[in-house]
Amino acid sequence: MTALVIERARLVTGTGGPLRGAALGALRVIEDAAVAVAAGRIREIGSTRELAARHPAAERLDAAGRALLPGLVDCHTHVVYAGSRIGEFERRLAGESYQQIAASGGGILVTVAATRAAGLDRLVDESTPRLRQMLRLGTTAVEIKSGYGLDLETELRMLAAIERLDAALPLDLVPTLLAAHVVPPEYAGRAGDYVDHVIDKLLPAARQWHARSRFAARGVPLACDVFCERGTFDVAQSRRLLAAARALGLPVRAHVDQFEALGGLDAALDLAAVSVDHLEASTPESLQRLARSSTVGVVMPAASFHLGQRYANARALVDAGGLLALCTDCNPGSAPCPSLPLAMAIACRYQKLRPAEALNAATVNAAHVLGLGAEVGSVEVGKQADLLLLDCRDWRELAYSFGGNPVAAVVKNGRLV
Amino acid sequence: MTALVIERARLVTGTGGPLRGAALGALRVIEDAAVAVAAGRIREIGSTRELAARHPAAERLDAAGRALLPGLVDCHTHVVYAGSRIGEFERRLAGESYQQIAASGGGILVTVAATRAAGLDRLVDESTPRLRQMLRLGTTAVEIKSGYGLDLETELRMLAAIERLDAALPLDLVPTLLAAHVVPPEYAGRAGDYVDHVIDKLLPAARQWHARSRFAARGVPLACDVFCERGTFDVAQSRRLLAAARALGLPVRAHVDQFEALGGLDAALDLAAVSVDHLEASTPESLQRLARSSTVGVVMPAASFHLGQRYANARALVDAGGLLALCTDCNPGSAPCPSLPLAMAIACRYQKLRPAEALNAATVNAAHVLGLGAEVGSVEVGKQADLLLLDCRDWRELAYSFGGNPVAAVVKNGRLV
Repeated sequence: MTALVIERARLVTGTGGPLRGAALGALRVIEDAAVAVAAGRIREIGSTRELAARHPAAERLDAAGRALLPGLVDCHTHVVYAGSRIGEFERRLAGESYQQIAASGGGILVTVAATRAAGLDRLVDESTPRLRQMLRLGTTAVEIKSGYGLDLETELRMLAAIERLDAALPLDLVPTLLAAHVVPPEYAGRAGDYVDHVIDKLLPAARQWHARSRFAARGVPLACDVFCERGTFDVAQSRRLLAAARALGLPVRAHVDQFEALGGLDAALDLAAVSVDHLEASTPESLQRLARSSTVGVVMPAASFHLGQRYANARALVDAGGLLALCTDCNPGSAPCPSLPLAMAIACRYQKLRPAEALNAATVNAAHVLGLGAEVGSVEVGKQADLLLLDCRDWRELAYSFGGNPVAAVVKNGRLV
Repeated sequence: MTALVIERARLVTGTGGPLRGAALGALRVIEDAAVAVAAGRIREIGSTRELAARHPAAERLDAAGRALLPGLVDCHTHVVYAGSRIGEFERRLAGESYQQIAASGGGILVTVAATRAAGLDRLVDESTPRLRQMLRLGTTAVEIKSGYGLDLETELRMLAAIERLDAALPLDLVPTLLAAHVVPPEYAGRAGDYVDHVIDKLLPAARQWHARSRFAARGVPLACDVFCERGTFDVAQSRRLLAAARALGLPVRAHVDQFEALGGLDAALDLAAVSVDHLEASTPESLQRLARSSTVGVVMPAASFHLGQRYANARALVDAGGLLALCTDCNPGSAPCPSLPLAMAIACRYQKLRPAEALNAATVNAAHVLGLGAEVGSVEVGKQADLLLLDCRDWRELAYSFGGNPVAAVVKNGRLV
């Protein structure tokens, strides 16, 4: 039984991904299209006339010629945390650098302290409005990393919060274990020991948690991530951790080359990482090697904008035939930005992407990073009915205008939310 | 009779403006504050306990500890127009400059053609969602310029559209005559003749229109503006036009130094302009001279962001003791951005403003530019009850987070809208 027909839409369909190189710019727009939804999935795509005749009893949503798109997929965020870092923002405006603030005990460790002190309820309560904001801005699937706990109890509490939020909100959440986000205070100067601890204790515990979670039941994997950068985890430590995760069967990802190109990118490629994320400082040679791999380069325009830092050379990666995805990196320190449309807008202006490339990078390719490529990321028969209706006819408004919200309605699993 | 008491607020009050130099950073935050509203105006400010006791019969709005701010004032926009310039945006992403596109018949003249072809109803219909978007983002007063007509009939139609929108929407609109926005096609190569035409015909007609409009009845002035730049109007032409406007008693403003410092700023200062707007290319000496004047420097961070152009040196103007205001410059070519919070966020990061400075520049100083300093721009007894309730306790979220919308509720003239 078809529950809903969205009709008279300018439908932006996509093709199955991931999309590599020149294919990233391909989009198909169908005028006067209709989408029939049943049991939360896209059942049929056709003309308004056809589908209206075929499903006379279905509920109708009249798009009135406006653009209908796949729900956006945010494949890299740190949106579950407690506390605020606004004070640090004022310090940065007064001239201190992100790294200086971190070195003086500010930065991520401030959020770690607040998150350790917060119970599960508070973590869920503080994170809920951020996720609702993302949903209003058109994001229907969100990856969320742990990494503000850095001890067994709090890392598992963060994962539990992600599970609670997934159950409570009309969003698909995807958990990632980022126990190796920074070195916790109790391991100061002993990053290697902390990596051992993660490998021996946190990784197996997180894997056990995942096996019993709603995520495993739905086939959503738990990935393992690491922040490879000077002052956090070096290449050898990162490689050791990711190899251990691989040995347990977990997909692996890595934060590499944000401030310095240390070699983490190559290590991640050796381990067939699903993605390498950041890439602001990557060398042209590394990007070429990445482009020839099946690892996705995930770039975060909002973080560069916020930090006033160079942008990753997304154009070079795409031009070399590589796989690119966009994310918000939403987090309280380096990217307090819930908006994938704004990330797309920044990427078009400062990373020389075309709007169609930015859209595919924030939908079908982002879904691939999360292992959700068969479920979300494009408007195709059989996929989840996660759709955005814009308030305008031209879907490019999403990347052209900025600061507002062109999303008029969000349909998640076939329901208007 | 007090109609509404907003209570338990973290109230960000302001002081009467305009605020100059170091005073721009001054804000007062009152914990557990209440604001009593009667007949659309702020009648009393005090503690929750006091005001609750004094006005037991009033309707109550519980801020629950969240931040309460003055409504934002956008003192420079071009938000009334017809048509779209997204195609041009794609040309810019492919490498053409704003000026190259203008020189090939694109740019502002594309919007002029669409606006001339649009009737009053269509102008109003197309502009309404843009203004509603601004209102949702916390803007309660908006200046709107003509300048996409460039002939008597269409310029007056644009002004009529602004009047219709002012009557229809819960926003205070302020009209500005910008007949000298660009040289219209029928005057190509004859900018001087067009300036004569504006002085002889458009200026007197607009003044007559204003005298009979709802704006004159409310004491809202009509200002006259000019775009002084290479390829549009030179310094002598700009000076001639603004002098004629001054002679008719109109406040004058000028777009100066966006791409090149031609001397328009000094001409505007000579004529005691209310504001000089843009300033990206202003010399340090000009900014010093501006800082010593009573003319406000209006900067537009969203335009620099969109064009990838240098930012106006707002910091230097403030440090030299000058008057600064922020705007969106919302327009289809160089700033498709309805969001003053995002303009504030960009200004903090790229123009080295503190959040408090950005807020005052987008409220009390912007109100002063529009001649509305006694009515709006701060939370003071006697002013209009134009207030924003944020979804958080810390008002700095407005400039810290970006891309979302931290405005939970807007009160306009004492009513929740």
